[in-house]
Amino acid sequence: MKIQNQERVIIENISPCIENGNFSLKTIANQPVFVEADILADGHDHLRAVLQFKAKSDKKWQEVPLSPLGNDRWGTTMISENEGTHEYFLEAWVDWPLNWLFGTRKKIDAGQHVKSELLEGAEYIKDILKKIKGKAKTAAESWIATLENEATYNEALELVKSDSLQQLFFDFPTKHLAAKSPLLPWKVERKKALFSTWYEFFPRSASETAGKHGTFKDCEKLLPRVAAMGFDTLYFPPVHPIGEVNRKGKNNATDAQPGDVGSPWGIGSKLGGHMSLHPELGNEADFKSMVDTAKSLGIEIAMDFALQAAPDHPWVKSNPQWFKWRPDGTAQYAENPPKKYQDILPIYFETADWKNLWDELLRIALYWVEEFGISVFRVDNPHTKPFHFWGWLMAKVQEKHPHVLFLAEAFTRPKIMEQLAKQGFTQSYSYFTWRTNKHELTEYVNELTKTERKHYFRANFWPNTPDINPFHLQSGNESIHLQRYALAATLSSNTGVYGPVYEHLVSDAIPGKEEYHDSEKYEFRHWDWKKETNLSRIMAAINHARREMPSLQQTNNIEFLEINNQHLLAFHKWDFEAKDRSLIVVNLDPHYAQNGWVKVPLAHWGIQAGHTVRVYDVVTKDSYVWNEEHCYIELHPVLPFHIFKVEF
Amino acid sequence: MKIQNQERVIIENISPCIENGNFSLKTIANQPVFVEADILADGHDHLRAVLQFKAKSDKKWQEVPLSPLGNDRWGTTMISENEGTHEYFLEAWVDWPLNWLFGTRKKIDAGQHVKSELLEGAEYIKDILKKIKGKAKTAAESWIATLENEATYNEALELVKSDSLQQLFFDFPTKHLAAKSPLLPWKVERKKALFSTWYEFFPRSASETAGKHGTFKDCEKLLPRVAAMGFDTLYFPPVHPIGEVNRKGKNNATDAQPGDVGSPWGIGSKLGGHMSLHPELGNEADFKSMVDTAKSLGIEIAMDFALQAAPDHPWVKSNPQWFKWRPDGTAQYAENPPKKYQDILPIYFETADWKNLWDELLRIALYWVEEFGISVFRVDNPHTKPFHFWGWLMAKVQEKHPHVLFLAEAFTRPKIMEQLAKQGFTQSYSYFTWRTNKHELTEYVNELTKTERKHYFRANFWPNTPDINPFHLQSGNESIHLQRYALAATLSSNTGVYGPVYEHLVSDAIPGKEEYHDSEKYEFRHWDWKKETNLSRIMAAINHARREMPSLQQTNNIEFLEINNQHLLAFHKWDFEAKDRSLIVVNLDPHYAQNGWVKVPLAHWGIQAGHTVRVYDVVTKDSYVWNEEHCYIELHPVLPFHIFKVEF
Repeated sequence: MKIQNQERVIIENISPCIENGNFSLKTIANQPVFVEADILADGHDHLRAVLQFKAKSDKKWQEVPLSPLGNDRWGTTMISENEGTHEYFLEAWVDWPLNWLFGTRKKIDAGQHVKSELLEGAEYIKDILKKIKGKAKTAAESWIATLENEATYNEALELVKSDSLQQLFFDFPTKHLAAKSPLLPWKVERKKALFSTWYEFFPRSASETAGKHGTFKDCEKLLPRVAAMGFDTLYFPPVHPIGEVNRKGKNNATDAQPGDVGSPWGIGSKLGGHMSLHPELGNEADFKSMVDTAKSLGIEIAMDFALQAAPDHPWVKSNPQWFKWRPDGTAQYAENPPKKYQDILPIYFETADWKNLWDELLRIALYWVEEFGISVFRVDNPHTKPFHFWGWLMAKVQEKHPHVLFLAEAFTRPKIMEQLAKQGFTQSYSYFTWRTNKHELTEYVNELTKTERKHYFRANFWPNTPDINPFHLQSGNESIHLQRYALAATLSSNTGVYGPVYEHLVSDAIPGKEEYHDSEKYEFRHWDWKKETNLSRIMAAINHARREMPSLQQTNNIEFLEINNQHLLAFHKWDFEAKDRSLIVVNLDPHYAQNGWVKVPLAHWGIQAGHTVRVYDVVTKDSYVWNEEHCYIELHPVLPFHIFKVEF
Repeated sequence: MKIQNQERVIIENISPCIENGNFSLKTIANQPVFVEADILADGHDHLRAVLQFKAKSDKKWQEVPLSPLGNDRWGTTMISENEGTHEYFLEAWVDWPLNWLFGTRKKIDAGQHVKSELLEGAEYIKDILKKIKGKAKTAAESWIATLENEATYNEALELVKSDSLQQLFFDFPTKHLAAKSPLLPWKVERKKALFSTWYEFFPRSASETAGKHGTFKDCEKLLPRVAAMGFDTLYFPPVHPIGEVNRKGKNNATDAQPGDVGSPWGIGSKLGGHMSLHPELGNEADFKSMVDTAKSLGIEIAMDFALQAAPDHPWVKSNPQWFKWRPDGTAQYAENPPKKYQDILPIYFETADWKNLWDELLRIALYWVEEFGISVFRVDNPHTKPFHFWGWLMAKVQEKHPHVLFLAEAFTRPKIMEQLAKQGFTQSYSYFTWRTNKHELTEYVNELTKTERKHYFRANFWPNTPDINPFHLQSGNESIHLQRYALAATLSSNTGVYGPVYEHLVSDAIPGKEEYHDSEKYEFRHWDWKKETNLSRIMAAINHARREMPSLQQTNNIEFLEINNQHLLAFHKWDFEAKDRSLIVVNLDPHYAQNGWVKVPLAHWGIQAGHTVRVYDVVTKDSYVWNEEHCYIELHPVLPFHIFKVEF
């Protein structure tokens, strides 16, 4: 508490401001952000306030004025075109020269004699003289003379009323006793942080030949297919050597059979650890070639960053202090009593040697970034490692490589997920996977986009993952697969899918569980990569629409629309600058056609009722002309959604 | 941002916490406060959290455990019986011994062999050995032996399941890597901060004889009357010498006539300044005698702290640097262009000599506290002096004299009023004076009692002041005077009235303004202090009910009740500990009887429908028996309210 301090202005309740500035506001380059605060002073004097911001590496601050919004709230917009760490603060002061100017004008208007006031004004101009030169200085000097000379009283009155004197005071503020807010952190990321389309498959299932272990070379051949479908991020489960001790068998069996390939998340063996590649997938050259080819096709390879070790990971011998040891001399494997996971040793972050441990983990991330051009990490179970570790690791990586993105795979409690986002994760897996009805979807999306979370939590919507085969997909019903992908890809600008099973409607589950039967987590499978299913075709069409429509490349620009049917979900999104508007309606009933009347957001678009609107379905290529505020929609399970581009 | 840090627990969103701990939470002695926070860690380990608090002058912290409330929110209650500055913080850690205990119990229940786990448990007990002695130590040593000895395996299992081992771990936590919240300030004040009943009159109008200037001696004679009416705080406008230069005349005339007494807020003349008394009122002995007599009757004299000077205040010569001087050599009087207030010089807080100025103003406050036993200040226009000054001044006074209370007279914009409360004002005049209809009253009271404001802003509800003769009172209608006092005194536990005009229904106004005609601000008046009006009698009855009913001695314990008539306002208040419940209904229509059915809050009181409730009207002494959830109420303008004490 600054208890003795002559400042008169109070700056409070700044928004956005994440946990009092402990964490960064997140935006992407060129995305404007509206900053506001309570700004007030004692008395009735004229206040001014500015926002100052800059990239941390810059020397010069950019300054924009704030305007009063009513009720002592002030606001303005800031924007940066450069990625990287930024900072901003607010500054506000009682502006004596302008206060004098506006007061004196009122006195003149009331017919008062203001001789003494004019002399005061001259003093204010004198204070500015040292800051200006040339013509401006000559003018200012002549104004002083006018104000001080009784003979030019009437001229002086005109000067007080003039814009030029007001402009001088505005341009050269004294900032006497200015109050400053704390410096607040702000991270500007590249556009992909907000707009990305992910595809996931297991490299070991990439072979064209059934029964053969896939390789990076096989993956490389599949890249054109992934690109053609409109995906820009290809995520692979871990590609490191897989532990041989306590290896898991098919369908998560505790005893592996000879030939079982194990779980790729059981990382490390005598063949190496987190900085090695699984030899059956290929060597470093193969991996690099694949990453480069992907890049040339507009695809980034997202690597899995999974911080755990198989019992035969090299660290267990080289750095035993990074694991917890039991009194009987054995290493502590993962457990959630009474369950035991003997194929995995968790890393012991409470170790006294934690600084070396953190450094080694950072070295791993930097190795893949710097040696192989990896620019995206999907982080496995970040919620089982300390939050501060992630904050530190990501800041360290992004300090050198601000373009590197991190997706948090934390399907856990809300505040844990939010904390990871605050610590710096670019994107987060989300509850979308389980939100199916209209109420749930609306509530969840509003929570993400209309609360403080919109400033730091970027959800990524996945209909499925290798870990989650949700009950509603287990029927193998095609309509619900179409519906869920359309929802994921339009509600959220970040979306992803565990692709092969999805495209082929493979959805057999372990009975009673949301887990895939014959899961690729424990075996490799064979997919007909040449086959184009109806799903593949429509997913591709949706992805291409996302690429063409700026309104679908953001998440927070969403409003749900009234539609008189519980099975129909309708919403619209917009990008006013790009003049792009979309309107989406989805039939949530996978079995029956549903119809209803959607309320078209004419007022939001700034158009009059009766005006004609043309809507163009980006998948079917049909278009419709709407003249009314309520328009009829009918959607059949065979193609259960409209993604309309709106034109008028 | 603590970026490198091995702690695993996060503590966030603490409530209450005023502006991130920049300002104090306020409570009164023995008032419990529920503290909550988000507390979370990575993984699934067992967490524990405590709240620590103490008076700033104490050495020893008091510790209370927090309990999980769901959704990673934790909470507990703290309470202090001592006035003064306190502080509190939260501390949370992963509790390894308890984590081990609960995990091992699950393994035992699942029939697993836990030999290795038992050895681990022995280690946890060994860590505690050094903290305990005597019997506890002997027991702990025997437990270690049991856990380590294979021969006592079954005994060891029983020990793991026992409460005694759990209690040991609970009582002697390791607090390994504990996270701590920032230290937060908390001010505990005496009960009067929350429950006070103010009466205001002008000492110069206290004479029994018409046309005679009143004195402190006259005031002293009136004290028994004030006490008998149930008031505990008697506020006097400034009692210092009144400026003679540019003195105001009757009805705010700019030219005083000979004999005009001027405004007591025009402080200072050749007779003295803020540390002198106006000679016509009496001397220091008279003043002291009056203050002491008041105290003996349970009344505290509230002094006006008005920081401004008449043009002939001694400071103008002795400390000219504390005023603003114009280029023509004259002092800057108060103005709000084009209006000018030539009888008042504002203090120039931007002076370079501000530290001496602040010290002198503090010396004034301490003088009246220490020499005359003044314990309450009503601060005039605090919103025209810097906020930080007030924060400093009040902290300084209360550091030595924690019982001193400050009421902020700031009828201004909401955020300015809130800021003054944050800086430390005990109580604040409020918008009640202008909130008249059911919607306005409900909304305003909910704003004060259901938002963060309840932790720092204590409203004082005044139906009128010498500055405000609100339009609705100008009719002189008795019913609305009864209604407004009943509302003020039951909605808020802090209430006050500018008494003589109110009791005598004197409400003549300057036409079109909310100002009293022949205002006592500019002249003294004569009141018949012997007369007991209907208003005096009922105001006294309300005051006495407040003294007897603990539920009326708090403000935040309020819920409005459904009642099917726009003119009837109903609410209830409670003090569960004192087993006191009140139910209030007020007829807001001063002209007609109104009736309706109030919904009785049976569920809130924890009683079944059909159960009999007896309500006792504390003013009329009537009582009613209610059997239903909806009860009939009819109120006439002649006595437009019920204050019921509820019994069952």
